[in-house]
Amino acid sequence: MASPLRFTGGVLELLDQTRLPGEEVWLRCQQPEQVADAIRRLAVRGAPAIGVAAAYGLVLGTREAGGSDPVAGFDAVADLLGSTRPTAVNLSWAIERGREVHARALAEGRDPHAALLDWAHGVARDREEADRLMAAHAGALFTARSRVYTHCNTGGLATAGGGTALGAIEEAWRTGLVGEVWVGETRPLLQGARLTAWELGQAGVPFRVVTDSSAAALMARGLVDLVMVGADRIARNGDVANKIGTYALAVLAERHRIPFHVVAPLSTIDPGTADGASIPIEERAPDEVTAYGSALNLAFDVTPFDLVTSIVTEAGVLEPPYEESIARALRAGSPA
Amino acid sequence: MASPLRFTGGVLELLDQTRLPGEEVWLRCQQPEQVADAIRRLAVRGAPAIGVAAAYGLVLGTREAGGSDPVAGFDAVADLLGSTRPTAVNLSWAIERGREVHARALAEGRDPHAALLDWAHGVARDREEADRLMAAHAGALFTARSRVYTHCNTGGLATAGGGTALGAIEEAWRTGLVGEVWVGETRPLLQGARLTAWELGQAGVPFRVVTDSSAAALMARGLVDLVMVGADRIARNGDVANKIGTYALAVLAERHRIPFHVVAPLSTIDPGTADGASIPIEERAPDEVTAYGSALNLAFDVTPFDLVTSIVTEAGVLEPPYEESIARALRAGSPA
Repeated sequence: MASPLRFTGGVLELLDQTRLPGEEVWLRCQQPEQVADAIRRLAVRGAPAIGVAAAYGLVLGTREAGGSDPVAGFDAVADLLGSTRPTAVNLSWAIERGREVHARALAEGRDPHAALLDWAHGVARDREEADRLMAAHAGALFTARSRVYTHCNTGGLATAGGGTALGAIEEAWRTGLVGEVWVGETRPLLQGARLTAWELGQAGVPFRVVTDSSAAALMARGLVDLVMVGADRIARNGDVANKIGTYALAVLAERHRIPFHVVAPLSTIDPGTADGASIPIEERAPDEVTAYGSALNLAFDVTPFDLVTSIVTEAGVLEPPYEESIARALRAGSPA
Repeated sequence: MASPLRFTGGVLELLDQTRLPGEEVWLRCQQPEQVADAIRRLAVRGAPAIGVAAAYGLVLGTREAGGSDPVAGFDAVADLLGSTRPTAVNLSWAIERGREVHARALAEGRDPHAALLDWAHGVARDREEADRLMAAHAGALFTARSRVYTHCNTGGLATAGGGTALGAIEEAWRTGLVGEVWVGETRPLLQGARLTAWELGQAGVPFRVVTDSSAAALMARGLVDLVMVGADRIARNGDVANKIGTYALAVLAERHRIPFHVVAPLSTIDPGTADGASIPIEERAPDEVTAYGSALNLAFDVTPFDLVTSIVTEAGVLEPPYEESIARALRAGSPA
């Protein structure tokens, strides 16, 4: 699919994902505040896409550079963007890389705004390349006409590239390796029913949407050959934080002896996080869940590494023990 | 709560559960076709309540008795009501008991309509008594201030009595045994978020609604002490058919070493069904799930007996091996 994010004429245009699939509305962001707002209210979402949007947000925030203290100016924009959502590590990853680019340009007497723009374009290009590589690596995980269960949205909408898990599924379908895709609707905001169904429909991939609580029954009936999901943050030991409901899928897959694969770029792996217990889990407004009473609205959960069959990155398919395979991958492929 | 079902002046009045919690609308059924329609579109729902509604439906269908062939007349009404929903065994249970009552009255020269009315009132009374007994037996399964996770709606709305699982939870709360109730919203029709939240709110029991996919994360955080659900049909071996999502909860509870209790009257146990694979699973219209693409909408799933910690009936708390404890309970307590 076409990217949900484009930067032209000094403006970041974002496809408003809260309006899909009903309407295709593009937001025009000229200020970092608008980018922060779009991230916060999920107009742009998906850990990798948030990273790209934040990179361009830094570009917008340093346009009126100069000022007496460009470092303080950068820090203010970084804090603004960094405070939008806590779980996806790609956001802080982009901000920290941007900070380095900004500091280096200042130190070398170059224009930091121009340096950030070059860098942000590079981040976007690298994302597309990483998605392409992940899809290629993931091909080995399918058999002929696999029935694949996926959760939330991990397609082009979520990455501003070809997609992580959903990109791999679409690529596998093109080569005859996918029979049908089960799409968990992904309450409360229905990213599966709204966004993944929309992307699969556009790509012509056969799919059916199910309520999230149906996955176990499908597995018990032998209708699922593998589970493939994305990630918002992966700890050093392989614990995976992803949309709430992912952990349940992993437990259910284990009970039914079904492989559970995670597809994510290296930038989603956080070597500074030892394990899942250290990952902050976003809690969103209760009214996303119900208008009828008190609610607890956890946005993510953590899947312990022992339930993860493989983690597909652009550097290849990582397998247990993850402590080692992750360290090796991070050393070898320096994330873009 | 007040019963969602009352029979006065020859009219069956049903609280329309599709309109809750927004509006309290009572349907007036004077013909069995109206009762069948109410069951089919879930205006009355919950396996035990469906049984009571069907009993009164037989009463309405035999009012204009006489006719040349009262047995054929009864059969037509029985077929109409029996075809509404496939999974709950209480429906066919009520119809078969009603058939015996009708045949006996005919054979003994009594008015079959009057005999059915007496019997239906008895079914309703027995339901209330069974619910009271189940709540008493279930008390032993709680500890002080238990955090209980429940699914779908199993309160007074579902049984036309005090409720099965939710009745037991409310009773335990009254005696200080419940700290908080987690209510799975129960997609696609949100019986948890709409009906269970409404009932708990009326009873003053503290609760929070969560998306169905949140249960695993709550368990992983140590926030759930036990799971308690109802059943639509229980096979002879203890396999439990209940609202879709129940099986997932049982697998997740096992993973977290949390007890998984089923509360159901003996009339929900079907000695004619050997195991879960023989239980017909209702598939409802895809548009209950999504307006955005193709969907599969399974209404129930089956939980294998090895995941069930106990089955609470009005005859007591049944424990594994269920093949034996169920047979013993059915022999001892003749279901009403």
